[in-house]
Amino acid sequence: MHLKEIVENIFPTDPKWMQKARERSASLVMPHRALGRLHEFAERICTIRETLEPSVENKAVLIMAGDHGVAAEGVSAYPQEVTGAMIATFLRGGAGINALCRHVGAEVFVTDMGIIPDTNPADFPEGHRLRVEKIARGTANIAKEAAMRRSEAEHSLLTGFAVASEKIAGGIDVLATGDMGIGNTTPSAALGAVFTGAPLEKLVGPGTGLDAAGVQRKRDIVRRAIEIHQPAREDPIGVLAQLGGFEIGAIAGTLLAAAYHRRPVVVDGFISTAGALVANALAPAVRDYMFAGHLSEEHGHAAMLSHLGMEPILQFGMRLGEGTGAALALGILDASVKSFREIFTFEEAAVPDKK
Amino acid sequence: MHLKEIVENIFPTDPKWMQKARERSASLVMPHRALGRLHEFAERICTIRETLEPSVENKAVLIMAGDHGVAAEGVSAYPQEVTGAMIATFLRGGAGINALCRHVGAEVFVTDMGIIPDTNPADFPEGHRLRVEKIARGTANIAKEAAMRRSEAEHSLLTGFAVASEKIAGGIDVLATGDMGIGNTTPSAALGAVFTGAPLEKLVGPGTGLDAAGVQRKRDIVRRAIEIHQPAREDPIGVLAQLGGFEIGAIAGTLLAAAYHRRPVVVDGFISTAGALVANALAPAVRDYMFAGHLSEEHGHAAMLSHLGMEPILQFGMRLGEGTGAALALGILDASVKSFREIFTFEEAAVPDKK
Repeated sequence: MHLKEIVENIFPTDPKWMQKARERSASLVMPHRALGRLHEFAERICTIRETLEPSVENKAVLIMAGDHGVAAEGVSAYPQEVTGAMIATFLRGGAGINALCRHVGAEVFVTDMGIIPDTNPADFPEGHRLRVEKIARGTANIAKEAAMRRSEAEHSLLTGFAVASEKIAGGIDVLATGDMGIGNTTPSAALGAVFTGAPLEKLVGPGTGLDAAGVQRKRDIVRRAIEIHQPAREDPIGVLAQLGGFEIGAIAGTLLAAAYHRRPVVVDGFISTAGALVANALAPAVRDYMFAGHLSEEHGHAAMLSHLGMEPILQFGMRLGEGTGAALALGILDASVKSFREIFTFEEAAVPDKK
Repeated sequence: MHLKEIVENIFPTDPKWMQKARERSASLVMPHRALGRLHEFAERICTIRETLEPSVENKAVLIMAGDHGVAAEGVSAYPQEVTGAMIATFLRGGAGINALCRHVGAEVFVTDMGIIPDTNPADFPEGHRLRVEKIARGTANIAKEAAMRRSEAEHSLLTGFAVASEKIAGGIDVLATGDMGIGNTTPSAALGAVFTGAPLEKLVGPGTGLDAAGVQRKRDIVRRAIEIHQPAREDPIGVLAQLGGFEIGAIAGTLLAAAYHRRPVVVDGFISTAGALVANALAPAVRDYMFAGHLSEEHGHAAMLSHLGMEPILQFGMRLGEGTGAALALGILDASVKSFREIFTFEEAAVPDKK
């Protein structure tokens, strides 16, 4: 499918369903809207699915992985080989995302969008959960040249779209995004600066653990990358090619797929929200389908969410990535839908309403 | 058991276990403390249980129910018969707390501490989940006289302690508190004012849905109750007798039981936190065992939590009571413990640590 066709077939949700869902909430045996935001979560899911009996039973976290040429500039506290080592950990079930997905009942799927080492599904016990779509062995260094070719940026979006569409066709009710890639808070901050217009001071943070001097250096590198490439936010694919990561493109593609197929999708933290900025620039109606899983501790996430008009579900000061904040929020969405569907109405409970 | 014996056997947790738990967190394959507050939740549970392999598998929400004489003053938006009707709904599985407990895998137990109508375990399909410990058919009207006798206040505390102790003896790993009682935000606000010292403007709110004039009237009634009884916070049992509710005493007793038996306990919203203020006044070390499930939308909850030095886990603008905020937080505690126990160490994952 062409990107143009995808983008042209993403439509806002129908407010009529929001109205119907709010009426159902009002009938439940409790003071008006006493479950607070849980009502809102369930009603948005009803509206997305156009039903008052939505399911979020089948859940999947799609982790997109990529390496980053800009890591050569010393923008991360961790060595670049951690990307590949963590992919192996995901596939062996030993990472944060695995524990949280087991907890909420979600499956974890990893796509190698372009990490440096070889990956082979046959190497892992759950090998079928690794998909290899390597565009290249890492992006180029954005402090010196464009991260990727324009055709590669399009390809990353279409691959994310294809992976997510396949999961939806396979019966997944609700998706969540995740990322892995040493150095990827740097391109994410750069994309954040371009799409939100917020100053770099608000967007560049310590990532996995830089000290103050490291953050300053990282900020200078992002500034240099933006000066060199002169990104134009009216051309989101161009911006992604100049500053992005393969996994960020694939996350944006995942979000487009959710909106295209009318499924709710939970956006994780800083890197995933950079993907959301790209998707939103391509098709603003994508916002109707997205939930912000949490507010990351990473400096800059708040500015991105505020630009998108998204209110995070959880705030635990997490900054792990992998999709961990989104996975935990999947459990909350599940709770909201169960409340919406299972609680008796005043009539069913035979409880007197307000005086 | 005598209350004195209980209170004298509640001790602070041992910081040595917190240290051990933090060391284990630091070994997990992720940037330092990248799961934010999830680390803290798991470490507190380790410290309470004195183990690095704690379980929160077996969960129970103990709903304490009572009616309130002060309802005669028009302090609630709902008629008083709702208390009994909601108890029936809990036992039929149709309330918010039931949906959320099914979601997190917790059992719901209801104790009738003193509601007006008769309750009979045999009337309900899950009758054994109702326990009848009726102290009286509702408290007296605190705007005119003491809510209960001093001996009844003690009895409410001891009953909550006994119910919770029985569940713990039966294998429950983690408890949560819940309440039902039309009118019970009024005594809770009064207890809040006495124990926190905060002004009534900060503590009295709309409850289930009073308008501005109703809130003003309610505030006047709380002021009158405090003027009449002249409560002395140095005597928490006396304050409970003057202003309290039977269910609030039983919630305080539940919290004392958790601390006495060294089990984590999640405090729900406004009414439960009024119970926490009573428990804290009796045995301040109880705070080491309590988690604040959420920040209620009810005006005044924040002042109570701040007095207790408790940071809420969730903030969804909920104001339903029943234990719903605490139940949802049980799922988060579960996630925190699973993360703590299941995530590989750097060594197990063979992932290089920070440069």
